[in-house]
Amino acid sequence: MSLFDKFKVLAELKKALGDGAQVSSVATPMDQVHSATSASIQGRKVVLAGTNNYLGLTFDERCRAAAIAAIEAMGTGTTGSRMASGNYAGHRDLEEALAGAFGWPSGIVFSTGYQANLGALSALASTGDTLVIDADSHASIHDACRLSQATTIRFRHNDPNNLERHLSRLGADASRALVVVESLYSVLGDRAPLAEITEITKRYGAWLIVDEAHSFGLYGARGLGICEELGLLDKVDFIVGTFSKSLGGVGGFCVSRHPELELIRMASRPYIFTASPPPGVIAATRCALDRVLEGHDLRAKLWRHVGRLYSELERLGYRVGTTTPGPVAALVFSEREEAKAQWQGLLDAGVYTNLMIPPATPIGTNIVRISLSAAHSDEEISHIIGALEQLAKKRPVTAAA
Amino acid sequence: MSLFDKFKVLAELKKALGDGAQVSSVATPMDQVHSATSASIQGRKVVLAGTNNYLGLTFDERCRAAAIAAIEAMGTGTTGSRMASGNYAGHRDLEEALAGAFGWPSGIVFSTGYQANLGALSALASTGDTLVIDADSHASIHDACRLSQATTIRFRHNDPNNLERHLSRLGADASRALVVVESLYSVLGDRAPLAEITEITKRYGAWLIVDEAHSFGLYGARGLGICEELGLLDKVDFIVGTFSKSLGGVGGFCVSRHPELELIRMASRPYIFTASPPPGVIAATRCALDRVLEGHDLRAKLWRHVGRLYSELERLGYRVGTTTPGPVAALVFSEREEAKAQWQGLLDAGVYTNLMIPPATPIGTNIVRISLSAAHSDEEISHIIGALEQLAKKRPVTAAA
Repeated sequence: MSLFDKFKVLAELKKALGDGAQVSSVATPMDQVHSATSASIQGRKVVLAGTNNYLGLTFDERCRAAAIAAIEAMGTGTTGSRMASGNYAGHRDLEEALAGAFGWPSGIVFSTGYQANLGALSALASTGDTLVIDADSHASIHDACRLSQATTIRFRHNDPNNLERHLSRLGADASRALVVVESLYSVLGDRAPLAEITEITKRYGAWLIVDEAHSFGLYGARGLGICEELGLLDKVDFIVGTFSKSLGGVGGFCVSRHPELELIRMASRPYIFTASPPPGVIAATRCALDRVLEGHDLRAKLWRHVGRLYSELERLGYRVGTTTPGPVAALVFSEREEAKAQWQGLLDAGVYTNLMIPPATPIGTNIVRISLSAAHSDEEISHIIGALEQLAKKRPVTAAA
Repeated sequence: MSLFDKFKVLAELKKALGDGAQVSSVATPMDQVHSATSASIQGRKVVLAGTNNYLGLTFDERCRAAAIAAIEAMGTGTTGSRMASGNYAGHRDLEEALAGAFGWPSGIVFSTGYQANLGALSALASTGDTLVIDADSHASIHDACRLSQATTIRFRHNDPNNLERHLSRLGADASRALVVVESLYSVLGDRAPLAEITEITKRYGAWLIVDEAHSFGLYGARGLGICEELGLLDKVDFIVGTFSKSLGGVGGFCVSRHPELELIRMASRPYIFTASPPPGVIAATRCALDRVLEGHDLRAKLWRHVGRLYSELERLGYRVGTTTPGPVAALVFSEREEAKAQWQGLLDAGVYTNLMIPPATPIGTNIVRISLSAAHSDEEISHIIGALEQLAKKRPVTAAA
């Protein structure tokens, strides 16, 4: 026996994904990255339509200048936890700016988005508490449940009735239950029924945390996310977000209307036992936050692109993960080979997207995930649509339900 | 009931730690950071003797220039996982350079050091496997065990006989056991008995992973760590390290003599479900790795400082966590108030250190942790020693066993 025996099936899957393709569809090597929407793969220039760079801020001049100035002034890293020597003025300022954007008293920055969910959830819910999570939650939420000492309950994806059934069974213990949902699910691009979820959660006296990883910066008048857009911010207890999508950096945050959020700094192991984000990352993110709050122009451009893509996908007969247009468009195929051919066809036409297949997705759901950016030019969107049109002509599009 | 009730005891501890002190001894706010060894706290300049900036590389000119050039060329972040759009040439190059330094075939980079342990251990050991860890392991190792589906066994800190007893009980299952130790424990600064541990692990057919977080860059002819120094690299299966200490950045790595390490990329959730490190972080770390490999000058300077400090601490009668000199010197006090007064006294004398008290340390073990850097000048070391001398004169030094 060997520790490695268990990976045999994965080695076979890896081989299958590479077979016949010139470029691997997982971990596709980017040789050079030229801009927020352009890279070279195997020496060939492609349009990037498979990142999470929704506002294109990784190449924003002001954000890059802020990062560079911070590295010049404060160095490449802090080498310490926030609880020791890594608690710089920039970290505290970013936390205040994030909380302040929501009009809330407390915000905490984490070193990755993964650690934001791990750190917030595992500290907020502990022995005797209950985490009530959507069954299709991101891996960081599932891992947080495993790390936490709380009981975990999974309710059916986007099913408020099922959530209510679980909360009603908890009785008085609902006051120690934390409901966890994402506002926008990143694989299919579908949205949570937040009006119903907030109403039910409050009615049972439970707590609510909403992960706006893929919606922060894109929805709402100030870009705070879908809760802002729906006017539900006063019904939410905590919001979690990430710096590595619309904000163009790396890291994550949790903000709250409850000043007691501050107390988890003393308890959250993924917060305490990690080096704090480097000055350059913090400075770029602080600048990107300003760009989000004032970013009507960026959002208008992104949504114009989104409208075009979704109407073209409908016209071309593609089956899409959700009918509500958003920054993510998931082309769904019943057969793995069909999805692989679509992914490869798009790449051959100079368009990089993401291939997602089981076990990363449910059985029978093979996805080519397209994501758009405010940094895309109209010409790049035309290029993406043109490639989709050519492929739709070449092979019959799946019409399976 | 409220989710926050459980934090009452922490709120009281926080208050206790702040009481009477002008500056909090936990999460001490750094107003400005001037260099690897100098910062301003409450408007006052202090010598930093409580970071993990062992080689001072956060301010290295070449590393900063590399980070800046990468941000200019490739932007502030990747916005994607290594498994999707975040797999840049720089990530792969750093992995090859790390593995190559050890002469090994495989290396994987993680977005934080915490996630390196989480990601390597939880993937390498799963259902049916056993993690056999030192009881005083870093939180990231304990959390990895909780995330893993493997059985966890804790052996007594630095006790090879106790490790052997546990391995002998496993019988044939030892071939699916992964022994986890740190080469240098960061709180007390004590070293693992690696010669005995490697011998026992191999004799029982188990696997060994050594965390060199606090020793990489400082020990061994090429700075690869204590395993290199002791000539034990050929008896170790995996080495884990961090970028946020001697390398001056943020992130972590796992390298292995086994090419099968590559397979965990398909299984490790903390690797898959997180954004990859930004180009600037990767470029600075790649440069810092070169500085480590050629860094005889830096190591010689650090070890000269270490020798001075340890001999002065002995002369002044301080009780220290270990008698083997190293980059960390832990002053141990039986009483919390004594440790607090020492920490405050050092700060008043312009020397920042780390205060560590229960529950972060064992009951009755209150620590003022001093750490040194190759970037310290001889004058700064004299300043630190002068402050320790003044405090030793003022109050009786604990002589408790």
